[in-house]
Amino acid sequence: MNSMQRAEVLIEALPYIKQFRGKTFVIKYGGSVMENRELTREFIEDVALLKLVGINIVIVHGGGKRINAMLDRVNLDVKFEQGQRVTDGEVMKIVEMVLSGQINKNLAAELSAHGLNAVGLSGKDSGLLKAEKKLTEGKDGELLDLGYVGEVREVNSSLLCSLIRDGYIPIISPVAGGYEKGETFNVNADYAAGAVAGAIEAEKLILLSDIKGLYKDINDEDSFITEIHVDQVKAYIEDGTISGGMIPKMECCMNAIDKGTNEVVIIDGRVAHSLLIEIFTNAGSGTMVKA
Amino acid sequence: MNSMQRAEVLIEALPYIKQFRGKTFVIKYGGSVMENRELTREFIEDVALLKLVGINIVIVHGGGKRINAMLDRVNLDVKFEQGQRVTDGEVMKIVEMVLSGQINKNLAAELSAHGLNAVGLSGKDSGLLKAEKKLTEGKDGELLDLGYVGEVREVNSSLLCSLIRDGYIPIISPVAGGYEKGETFNVNADYAAGAVAGAIEAEKLILLSDIKGLYKDINDEDSFITEIHVDQVKAYIEDGTISGGMIPKMECCMNAIDKGTNEVVIIDGRVAHSLLIEIFTNAGSGTMVKA
Amino acid sequence: MNSMQRAEVLIEALPYIKQFRGKTFVIKYGGSVMENRELTREFIEDVALLKLVGINIVIVHGGGKRINAMLDRVNLDVKFEQGQRVTDGEVMKIVEMVLSGQINKNLAAELSAHGLNAVGLSGKDSGLLKAEKKLTEGKDGELLDLGYVGEVREVNSSLLCSLIRDGYIPIISPVAGGYEKGETFNVNADYAAGAVAGAIEAEKLILLSDIKGLYKDINDEDSFITEIHVDQVKAYIEDGTISGGMIPKMECCMNAIDKGTNEVVIIDGRVAHSLLIEIFTNAGSGTMVKA
Amino acid sequence: MNSMQRAEVLIEALPYIKQFRGKTFVIKYGGSVMENRELTREFIEDVALLKLVGINIVIVHGGGKRINAMLDRVNLDVKFEQGQRVTDGEVMKIVEMVLSGQINKNLAAELSAHGLNAVGLSGKDSGLLKAEKKLTEGKDGELLDLGYVGEVREVNSSLLCSLIRDGYIPIISPVAGGYEKGETFNVNADYAAGAVAGAIEAEKLILLSDIKGLYKDINDEDSFITEIHVDQVKAYIEDGTISGGMIPKMECCMNAIDKGTNEVVIIDGRVAHSLLIEIFTNAGSGTMVKA
Amino acid sequence: MNSMQRAEVLIEALPYIKQFRGKTFVIKYGGSVMENRELTREFIEDVALLKLVGINIVIVHGGGKRINAMLDRVNLDVKFEQGQRVTDGEVMKIVEMVLSGQINKNLAAELSAHGLNAVGLSGKDSGLLKAEKKLTEGKDGELLDLGYVGEVREVNSSLLCSLIRDGYIPIISPVAGGYEKGETFNVNADYAAGAVAGAIEAEKLILLSDIKGLYKDINDEDSFITEIHVDQVKAYIEDGTISGGMIPKMECCMNAIDKGTNEVVIIDGRVAHSLLIEIFTNAGSGTMVKA
Amino acid sequence: MNSMQRAEVLIEALPYIKQFRGKTFVIKYGGSVMENRELTREFIEDVALLKLVGINIVIVHGGGKRINAMLDRVNLDVKFEQGQRVTDGEVMKIVEMVLSGQINKNLAAELSAHGLNAVGLSGKDSGLLKAEKKLTEGKDGELLDLGYVGEVREVNSSLLCSLIRDGYIPIISPVAGGYEKGETFNVNADYAAGAVAGAIEAEKLILLSDIKGLYKDINDEDSFITEIHVDQVKAYIEDGTISGGMIPKMECCMNAIDKGTNEVVIIDGRVAHSLLIEIFTNAGSGTMVKA
Repeated sequence: MNSMQRAEVLIEALPYIKQFRGKTFVIKYGGSVMENRELTREFIEDVALLKLVGINIVIVHGGGKRINAMLDRVNLDVKFEQGQRVTDGEVMKIVEMVLSGQINKNLAAELSAHGLNAVGLSGKDSGLLKAEKKLTEGKDGELLDLGYVGEVREVNSSLLCSLIRDGYIPIISPVAGGYEKGETFNVNADYAAGAVAGAIEAEKLILLSDIKGLYKDINDEDSFITEIHVDQVKAYIEDGTISGGMIPKMECCMNAIDKGTNEVVIIDGRVAHSLLIEIFTNAGSGTMVKA
Repeated sequence: MNSMQRAEVLIEALPYIKQFRGKTFVIKYGGSVMENRELTREFIEDVALLKLVGINIVIVHGGGKRINAMLDRVNLDVKFEQGQRVTDGEVMKIVEMVLSGQINKNLAAELSAHGLNAVGLSGKDSGLLKAEKKLTEGKDGELLDLGYVGEVREVNSSLLCSLIRDGYIPIISPVAGGYEKGETFNVNADYAAGAVAGAIEAEKLILLSDIKGLYKDINDEDSFITEIHVDQVKAYIEDGTISGGMIPKMECCMNAIDKGTNEVVIIDGRVAHSLLIEIFTNAGSGTMVKA
Repeated sequence: MNSMQRAEVLIEALPYIKQFRGKTFVIKYGGSVMENRELTREFIEDVALLKLVGINIVIVHGGGKRINAMLDRVNLDVKFEQGQRVTDGEVMKIVEMVLSGQINKNLAAELSAHGLNAVGLSGKDSGLLKAEKKLTEGKDGELLDLGYVGEVREVNSSLLCSLIRDGYIPIISPVAGGYEKGETFNVNADYAAGAVAGAIEAEKLILLSDIKGLYKDINDEDSFITEIHVDQVKAYIEDGTISGGMIPKMECCMNAIDKGTNEVVIIDGRVAHSLLIEIFTNAGSGTMVKA
Repeated sequence: MNSMQRAEVLIEALPYIKQFRGKTFVIKYGGSVMENRELTREFIEDVALLKLVGINIVIVHGGGKRINAMLDRVNLDVKFEQGQRVTDGEVMKIVEMVLSGQINKNLAAELSAHGLNAVGLSGKDSGLLKAEKKLTEGKDGELLDLGYVGEVREVNSSLLCSLIRDGYIPIISPVAGGYEKGETFNVNADYAAGAVAGAIEAEKLILLSDIKGLYKDINDEDSFITEIHVDQVKAYIEDGTISGGMIPKMECCMNAIDKGTNEVVIIDGRVAHSLLIEIFTNAGSGTMVKA
Repeated sequence: MNSMQRAEVLIEALPYIKQFRGKTFVIKYGGSVMENRELTREFIEDVALLKLVGINIVIVHGGGKRINAMLDRVNLDVKFEQGQRVTDGEVMKIVEMVLSGQINKNLAAELSAHGLNAVGLSGKDSGLLKAEKKLTEGKDGELLDLGYVGEVREVNSSLLCSLIRDGYIPIISPVAGGYEKGETFNVNADYAAGAVAGAIEAEKLILLSDIKGLYKDINDEDSFITEIHVDQVKAYIEDGTISGGMIPKMECCMNAIDKGTNEVVIIDGRVAHSLLIEIFTNAGSGTMVKA
Repeated sequence: MNSMQRAEVLIEALPYIKQFRGKTFVIKYGGSVMENRELTREFIEDVALLKLVGINIVIVHGGGKRINAMLDRVNLDVKFEQGQRVTDGEVMKIVEMVLSGQINKNLAAELSAHGLNAVGLSGKDSGLLKAEKKLTEGKDGELLDLGYVGEVREVNSSLLCSLIRDGYIPIISPVAGGYEKGETFNVNADYAAGAVAGAIEAEKLILLSDIKGLYKDINDEDSFITEIHVDQVKAYIEDGTISGGMIPKMECCMNAIDKGTNEVVIIDGRVAHSLLIEIFTNAGSGTMVKA
């Protein structure tokens, strides 16, 4: 690549920098990218670049695989019903330790090592996330109580706003406090990211996932959707175009938009620098769901 | 107690409020008070009162007993040499999860439930604490490498200062990052509290302990020392007046003063409201070591 | 009283400090407390404590007895009609000198000697209080012109706001300017305090009086009223429950609430530290009239 | 006077406005101008103009004649020794009431009626002026104790600075607090003005007096001095050129310069608008003593 | 003129200073005053005085004669139709160089030499003025395209506001950018001044002209109009009272008021200090058209 | 170029953005880039990108060719001696009109059209540049007076600082005021840029030139120097390594560093996006002279 081509890439980024400078992006970080050292390193470089050109970043992370490993180790069952983890009090303690005490702090440390001022938080800090028990619909439509599985009810954004204003990058573990003294809930990271994005009126919610995005027909590469209105998503679900495993992911996008987020982007975390490519190049890389 | 007596208590507190308003206290919270629900509740009330009359609070917590329980559960040995925990990589992960993911966040949540804005941090957030391996002197004077046992080398106080200025109470877990990529160290909570107090030029470092304070003669209740100069402490260690288990505690005080703390107070965490009594009444309650 | 009891008193004050921090109280200071050195000293201690825990204070003082003494000395008649002082031009000059030149400045000096930044003002400073002549209803319902007896028409709160913001305690003498060039009016201190409290949207107006508060039946100690709604006061006046000398005091409370004050408290100035007890203990000490 | 001439007067004022904008002048207001309604009205107009073009004003007033009248009225002796008023406790109370309660507040009210934000203070407000007893040299060189005659020892300028910054005009009564509880001192207004000017580093101290200024030979109109260095004043006193009643006035100027004032101007208060003419015209009107 | 008279002139200016302090005046500077060194010097003195008493100034200048001279020199025709300059691309370049490169910068330099912080701008700086082509009505009502003769469509006042807030005097050349890339338009200075005055909500627009103002009957000196409502101007144009050359000038005033200016004053630039006389004396000097 | 490569270019820019964010660059814009529409467009894109990533920009422009064309047109001689333009009063007027009235304003308009807030200034605005006559050394060492050829003596940086702080891009024409009333000087744009860079303590001075940079041996492409210390430049001039036309360019660099600039970079304005390549890629593009 010659100098001129390099300059063109930078110039191409110009209108995007102009557009997003001073805005806030909430990024859901999870899945494969989290388990792969190389992808993680690239993700951190991407975040650093976004921050430097003046975009405020908030990260909400997930953590499934490491939780399972730890539960195994303490001889607790790894049990899921309808895709939700069965979470009694003992399980909840392990979940929280892994999420808030291991993944969260390691990510904060890695970002900080790159000269970013990252601060690891959980929903229990300064009332950041308050949740209530969420019942899960069973196979036969009955409601199942899976324990400390929660749904975010309140976001106290003042701590986030203070930290963002002072140039910090908040990293949020998807663990919330409850309304009863001492309660702790495990909340879905995608949904938590959506609630946070809504509460701070983020410009974009970006979901780093293990899929490329949305296809009209999953078997037809050419039917990839780069941009779609939330109402169309609903229509596609109703007419069966969207089905199976894509439904929960799409419900999460719809929920995030419903909570006040302007725009949700699903990008493929398995592709190197997919974050940067999505934001700073005309090509883009994923599916954007708009309000 | 009649109204007049109540008024007198408040009036007695007046000069102390005047003196400490706008100053910062670093409190080391650990030992029995942490294991006792009632004492913890009273400790939180005390912190709330200090904050309300305008004193900034930073808390550094310990966590010994719960770490041991978790290590047991994952079948890792609980091993100490010369009072220091033997901490290999596997042990360090458990230590961190318990400290930063359980104790730290639960304390943040409890304080926040009292209307305080508490934020749980570890030394790995935004480069707050950087440590290096600390070798331990063995029985025969040889130096032992006990693994990830660290000594704080740097404190990045800017995050603390931002949070304090905005009215938050930072809660710090005694886990530090290292200078090599990915390193994590377990640091002594008393020493970490001393390093933090020095870095932010705290007015007081208060060590909530399981002892009443310092006695000239441990068998003579009347020899209790309410205030002592750091030089006198050194002299007492040299002449054998202070001996045995009191030596490390006193070394911690001396180290804290050396790092820049103005005043270290050892108070008895087993006594209800000992924090409040120490700060707001003429009687005081512990031993004050002055620079 | 032991340490534990002392701590409890401080803890009991906690919610009140939380509630009133950063709010402003207007205190009418007059009657017996002003004539008694010991009570005055305690009043000043109470004000100092309120200020230290973050409550802004404005004081409006009275001055009856010392005015009479001075009028005597210059051979002017001390004359009242329907409880109002007959105030011709000569009397007004003496009234003003005693209030603004003696009582006001001595109180400012005493508070300042306690490390408080007290500033003595009268209504004539920077247009603070503007009054118009107030006619007095005579025995037979006729309107009497008693001279420079005024009613506050306007409060220019900007000077008070500047001083409060900079941490000063304004002390206000109940002397107002008029709308005609050179006019000066004597205004009722209780009413002036009410007008000031309304203009600066004070949290509380506290009237230090020579009574314990309001009783439903003055002869029955048990009928003491600790809290009452302003509408109930009106009803009690209409049905005769409140009568005689309590009527003007209650009218003053109603007027203060009408002018915008949220809450008026009548407390007994003859009781040591009644101010502190009212504000910081569950027991309270007087009668609160609420809007 | 035609338009062109009017424009020239304004243009002539230009460099003076440029020079003094944002600076502070302390004006000693006393003597004939205070006793004459017309001169007072013109003085207020002059102060208003100075304020409007951006000059900060502090006024220190005197009050001799009205004090004597009031002392007479309460049958206290009007007694002077060596030009100083004999001031026992009873006299002091009357002096303070007339100065702080009458003259001070009336001046504040008059200035405020012209749209200026004037605030009447005495030295007892917020520790503004602290004085000690000043002994007076008697005829035979012996030291006389004339009671509460004080000399300013400390000026707490923070209240003045707050008020000036917020656009207020402080009016100061020459009454000071003492170092003993409850003490009040009568201080010389010229000297008080000098101490205030020094403490706030005023640009100019202007003494409105009943003399035209300084003459080398009082009998020779042509020997009028428009500008003189403080050292020359000392030389003239030593060689007898300045003698008699001019000596105390000149000592006051020297003292003011000694306390830190840059420039003292004596102007004739009996001449209409002498303040304006001195400051805004090339002609000037009095004698300037320079540091 | 004696001192007393001088003082009176200053006192007479008092209410005007009070009224205009902190307000902004836009002054159209052009015609004879610009061609005469003495008048220019006096104009600068007047501007300096206005600035010093706290009035913000924006100047829009014209420049006809010097443009003609330069066009002559480069052998371009000086051609007008219906009072508008025929302005092809070549002419426009010369017009811009003379206005923005000569007159504008010389005026900025002269004002700056008087200690004022004057900054020369044209409408092309930071999008200050955007214009569109303005067609001119020909003799027979047909529309003539005279080239780069523009009409202001947008004013970007943020640069002006920044400069005014920081104490600068913007000097604006009547050259505007267009909506097509690279376009430059010559705009009428009176109209440009009106558009600027409207955009920044100026207190006054002052047109320095070569006429004394408006007369009801141009042959009758006594029919001079000192103040007139904009509606009356319209009525006078309709009934023929205002006719001939006065019509465009009056249309300009009406247009300025229409754009948001509060008050337009036409004053005679040929009279020394007419600006000062208009603003600071009761006499005034020109015709004021009010909204 | 694929997405991954694009991401790498952006990532490569990361450390440079980090390093220069919030710093100020002064760019000398002149020569071929100014005469070529395409290069100018690319230069503007580059400036926009620098500004967007948080670098403050000040531009100083030259203008030789267009001045000559205009002098021709008005029949004035284009005369140089020793590389300096002979500049009598008539020539100076044309020079100023072209520089400040044409080139300067067109550049401001073009940048503004790209959404940048560019403000065209000359040294005559608010005393920005003050110059004195500079004599030129003739062939035989004699000093020649070439008229209004000046050397910058003073830079008043406050206007630049205000504009930079508010986000504006100052564009400076190399025309300075003098110390005598009405004087205007033509100053060398490279030197003016150096003086400005020194006065505002710029991070970098970038000279866009018509050369690639410095070669040790002009005939050997491989001897290109990418970085050199100012002392080495001096040594090379002395030993003849640098000779001929490179000497004045190098003297300008040395002078700029002498005036306080940290680093001067000569880059080739004839190469597209050379500015961006120099600043944001590891390759760089010109010669850097370091202090």
